[in-house]
Amino acid sequence: MSAIERPPKFADIEGAAERLRGMAVRTPLLESEALNQRAGVRVLLKAECLQRTGTFKFRGAYNAISQVEASAVVAYSSGNHAQGVAAAAKLLNKRATIVMPADAPAIKIENTRAYGAEVRLYDRQRESREEIGAEIAARTGAALIRPYDDPRIIAGQGTAGLELAEQVRELGTAPDLALVPCGGGGLIAGCALALIEAFPGIAIYAVEPAGLDDTRRSLEAGHRQVNAPEATSICDALLVPTPGELTFAINRRLLAGSLTVSDDEVRGAIAFAFRQLKLVLEPGGAVALAAVLSRKLSWSGRTAAVVLSGANVDPVLFAAAITGCSA
Amino acid sequence: MSAIERPPKFADIEGAAERLRGMAVRTPLLESEALNQRAGVRVLLKAECLQRTGTFKFRGAYNAISQVEASAVVAYSSGNHAQGVAAAAKLLNKRATIVMPADAPAIKIENTRAYGAEVRLYDRQRESREEIGAEIAARTGAALIRPYDDPRIIAGQGTAGLELAEQVRELGTAPDLALVPCGGGGLIAGCALALIEAFPGIAIYAVEPAGLDDTRRSLEAGHRQVNAPEATSICDALLVPTPGELTFAINRRLLAGSLTVSDDEVRGAIAFAFRQLKLVLEPGGAVALAAVLSRKLSWSGRTAAVVLSGANVDPVLFAAAITGCSA
Repeated sequence: MSAIERPPKFADIEGAAERLRGMAVRTPLLESEALNQRAGVRVLLKAECLQRTGTFKFRGAYNAISQVEASAVVAYSSGNHAQGVAAAAKLLNKRATIVMPADAPAIKIENTRAYGAEVRLYDRQRESREEIGAEIAARTGAALIRPYDDPRIIAGQGTAGLELAEQVRELGTAPDLALVPCGGGGLIAGCALALIEAFPGIAIYAVEPAGLDDTRRSLEAGHRQVNAPEATSICDALLVPTPGELTFAINRRLLAGSLTVSDDEVRGAIAFAFRQLKLVLEPGGAVALAAVLSRKLSWSGRTAAVVLSGANVDPVLFAAAITGCSA
Repeated sequence: MSAIERPPKFADIEGAAERLRGMAVRTPLLESEALNQRAGVRVLLKAECLQRTGTFKFRGAYNAISQVEASAVVAYSSGNHAQGVAAAAKLLNKRATIVMPADAPAIKIENTRAYGAEVRLYDRQRESREEIGAEIAARTGAALIRPYDDPRIIAGQGTAGLELAEQVRELGTAPDLALVPCGGGGLIAGCALALIEAFPGIAIYAVEPAGLDDTRRSLEAGHRQVNAPEATSICDALLVPTPGELTFAINRRLLAGSLTVSDDEVRGAIAFAFRQLKLVLEPGGAVALAAVLSRKLSWSGRTAAVVLSGANVDPVLFAAAITGCSA
């Protein structure tokens, strides 16, 4: 096993935090009385929706690319990893090519191009993004930056959890629970490493879209399960076929379980965040909030940390969610 | 002149900050590369849209009501001061009656009631909110909490400027300019006192809706001017007939001038904040951002502090602004 194939450790998150100092936003920890009342627990919100590029993905991308020797990078992504890689590559003076599904939200494709990356569109049903990415890497010498199954990515995402732990301590409290959105599992794996180091007794739950609950089923089975190919959700940022190998090695060990939320519950969470929190959230970024609002657990604790992970949302979908119309 | 009729001094803002400790949110100072590029200056955003009740108004209301001896308070407001007073009164265990225009956004009336206040609606064209407020105060013994012409209110709002100064210093920089939304002038008067104490050379500009530029004309004339009674704007939070007496006494001395923005420029700023900043803004809360985006000044400086002052926006208006449709 090479270093890149081993799961990261807590020290790798501390190293990532050093690399990201002054580059990533130390996103605020927010609280809302209206939310506390609705949830029945004290909820502390880590607003990664205010991160550079609109999601936590910048953290992992910057941490990985800052350790790459090649002068170019390539990545495949439904959109948020694309923007993170494009923005990080630009800051680190490397060329970036991003392989994106042709049906990704227009705003994500536009933003990726705006960061100076070259975009290669592909057909989600007929082409393999992994194959396209590997082909570009082999042909051009660009380093492949995977979206989650890379210890540098996981460690970078974990810096969100490291900050969260610091910020919760600054409030003089400790969370009993943490709820984190989960697609490939990089964010929650990194956050779990950081949070358990700070709060050994914490119960950490993944939150997934209904029908795309590969992590929930994988945790129950003890090995990785696959989603039905036709499964879909408005949570475009969380559409993955199966948990990552490295991420699941961590998540299997550290997570208490996984909760699922429906698209309607996600729309409700987007509307709540608009009305009460004054934050813009994308569907995938709102799943953990949706789980809290829908009281998916009989909370055994008193304080829950919730990660709001992204905000790159289509305006028409958002407008429909906040006005209560269907998009 | 009684104490309540004198403009506050810097020490009053420090006193307000003590009272507000742990009660008001220390709202984050945010920065966006996309905004810096559009504006042509470095822009530091004070996100008071994330304040308790969705606007800075909570600061002044809490500071004022915490110094009231009566067991009840009364206020008149187009909506944001109403919510601030209602929320502060509840925390301080006082009864609150709020006199609100019948055409205020439904969300503001609902939220005011949700904080436990009694709401007395009035007709903006035919009734005087000042008379109704004074009558309730005389009849019930409730203390009248004015929206801006009160030194305790101005000092409370000034704590936003005090935090802004601290947060800018934490970044190791200093602003050359500050742009602050202006209706009655309480927020900008308080912020001006705080910012000039910290940065004596700073140029502070009010930003007003076009057609409701009473502060701009008052600054030019040297005494208070009145808006045309029929003048209107989507910036419902900034609809006042004339600058406050106390606020103008401060603003006349400390402001560099006032800029105006059109309703379309405000809609553009709301859409920009949605897309790039991931923040919800209401029209009145977006005017200073609109002035920066529209480059209303030939910036002589390099760093501008901009206050985003509120986020209690009608969902239909917001949806129209972000999708580019007319509401």
